[in-house]
Amino acid sequence: MIIDCHGHYTTAPKALQAFRDAQLAQIKEGKNNHIAHPVISDDEIRESLEGAQLKFQRERGTDVTIFSPRASAMAHHIGDESVSLAWSEVCNDLIARVCGLYPKNFVGVCQLPQSPGVPPSHSARELERCVNDLGFIGCNLNPDPSGGNWTSPPLTDRHWYPLYEKMVELEAPGMVHVSASCNPNFHATGAHYINADTTAFMQFIQGDLFKDFPTLKLVIPHGGGAVPFHWGRYRGLAQDMKRPLLEDMMKNNVFFDTCVYHRPGIELLLKVAPIDNILFGSEMVGAVRGIDPNTGHYYDDTKRYLDALDLGAETRAKLFEGNARRTYPRLAAKLKAH
Amino acid sequence: MIIDCHGHYTTAPKALQAFRDAQLAQIKEGKNNHIAHPVISDDEIRESLEGAQLKFQRERGTDVTIFSPRASAMAHHIGDESVSLAWSEVCNDLIARVCGLYPKNFVGVCQLPQSPGVPPSHSARELERCVNDLGFIGCNLNPDPSGGNWTSPPLTDRHWYPLYEKMVELEAPGMVHVSASCNPNFHATGAHYINADTTAFMQFIQGDLFKDFPTLKLVIPHGGGAVPFHWGRYRGLAQDMKRPLLEDMMKNNVFFDTCVYHRPGIELLLKVAPIDNILFGSEMVGAVRGIDPNTGHYYDDTKRYLDALDLGAETRAKLFEGNARRTYPRLAAKLKAH
Repeated sequence: MIIDCHGHYTTAPKALQAFRDAQLAQIKEGKNNHIAHPVISDDEIRESLEGAQLKFQRERGTDVTIFSPRASAMAHHIGDESVSLAWSEVCNDLIARVCGLYPKNFVGVCQLPQSPGVPPSHSARELERCVNDLGFIGCNLNPDPSGGNWTSPPLTDRHWYPLYEKMVELEAPGMVHVSASCNPNFHATGAHYINADTTAFMQFIQGDLFKDFPTLKLVIPHGGGAVPFHWGRYRGLAQDMKRPLLEDMMKNNVFFDTCVYHRPGIELLLKVAPIDNILFGSEMVGAVRGIDPNTGHYYDDTKRYLDALDLGAETRAKLFEGNARRTYPRLAAKLKAH
Repeated sequence: MIIDCHGHYTTAPKALQAFRDAQLAQIKEGKNNHIAHPVISDDEIRESLEGAQLKFQRERGTDVTIFSPRASAMAHHIGDESVSLAWSEVCNDLIARVCGLYPKNFVGVCQLPQSPGVPPSHSARELERCVNDLGFIGCNLNPDPSGGNWTSPPLTDRHWYPLYEKMVELEAPGMVHVSASCNPNFHATGAHYINADTTAFMQFIQGDLFKDFPTLKLVIPHGGGAVPFHWGRYRGLAQDMKRPLLEDMMKNNVFFDTCVYHRPGIELLLKVAPIDNILFGSEMVGAVRGIDPNTGHYYDDTKRYLDALDLGAETRAKLFEGNARRTYPRLAAKLKAH
């Protein structure tokens, strides 16, 4: 079985964006009235997926995608807590419908109703709803709900602990994933995403988060940001700071995906990061939509880069399935059910 | 000849820090009086270098280091413009003395008196002094003088143009180098530095800076941040955005150094980035001071990683000398003089 740990619903029917547009219009007008939830038919959902994520699953030979709302659209910095909650509920409900229509192809991960300056504990209830009522297996955790101004404390700060407690209680891992950037310095997918990945990893080196939460699992997407390329730098920094070895810090808690869109990058990732901590992921249909003229294949067809390597059966099994099952305790039951 | 394009005076005599401490004390007290420049003897300077940078030059077999004040200590976010100017002058004067004492070993690059919210044009005069009076060949350009709050416009914004005009006029390239972080999210050398490198590169993809300044040369240190690891991502983003090919954008304007502290990272860098745009650099004695227990050698001995590769004479000549000479037009005259 091939599990893609990183997919977003980037092709959602237009009614979803219409709901968001209504929210944005209300914010502009200083209003905060209830907005009717978008009406989307099953056929519209099927249509949005059949020519995109499902087509690529078939073509690339992957089985199931751990699927969450469009990351760049979470935009926690827009509006207040109530806006973020309403938007999160609508997005998560739609993911639940996707998973209901295609239970073999998609397993849900939720967007949290984070908001700048609002305690992360306020996201616990929506996480609970998504896991207990909608059958989701994890969440996306935005380390910077301000959207590029980085006004929250580091992920190792006690500020985040109440949410971690709920994640641990629910056995719901988090993918550390920022959203759109409202800081003109940071292109969202070209700078802010990768910076956040790098930033989170360094915070984990500095802090003692996993002493306090030995069963908390966090996935750093996009191949771990800059970390594998600078593996020697991070090993050396940890050593100078008398912190644990990187592999010991990561062991049961920190994972990278394989969303690295060229073969030399994937090769480096597998060479330096612990194999047990790498989860196959593609983030298709995501940041990079084009076909690489050098290969004739989609940049984000990360399975091809892995298939081209002589990995051996055991490593392949870990990357494509075992590590995802180990990271997401609730995944097995979802897969068994279908 | 082997030219290390990236070294900072991290081992400066204590009197320099005493001057800075006096500045910080005045800021705390709300004062801004003249502080006597630090008194440092030639012997103190020699002593600070003989056991460190010069020892490593000899041991590692490098000839000359392009040398600038300690990057993390620039801290442009501290105090106002006058504080930044006084600190920059003192730091740059000390680099000039280093270069005077060891003209074969060090060539100067200056710290700019940047300050948050202050037009970059205000740095032009100190750049001019350093190039014309002190014989420096370039500058360090901080894209985020706020120290981790990223309040300046992107490097492609016209905000920066008056300074670029002076850099072009003086033939003085800039190394895009942030300083200390006052944002607790960002560890300076483990997150802020690398993020800034990645951020700058993406800005260059988005903007048309080098159409406006075809002879402006900017070095992105630390191997280009996350960029080489995500080369496919950046190629794909540029393609989706209908922007030039990365190698065309970089061609005469954007360069990476080799401050990547493990062999697989160096191998990746050389595999993906254009060879003409890579400058040998080590940033010794810098972010990572330790010895890698896996190799028994210093992490930052980047020459070792390059020496271990079968590069061929032409590539070696470019990496170790030719590209630095091409990037820094004023370098040749400095090297010829000695």
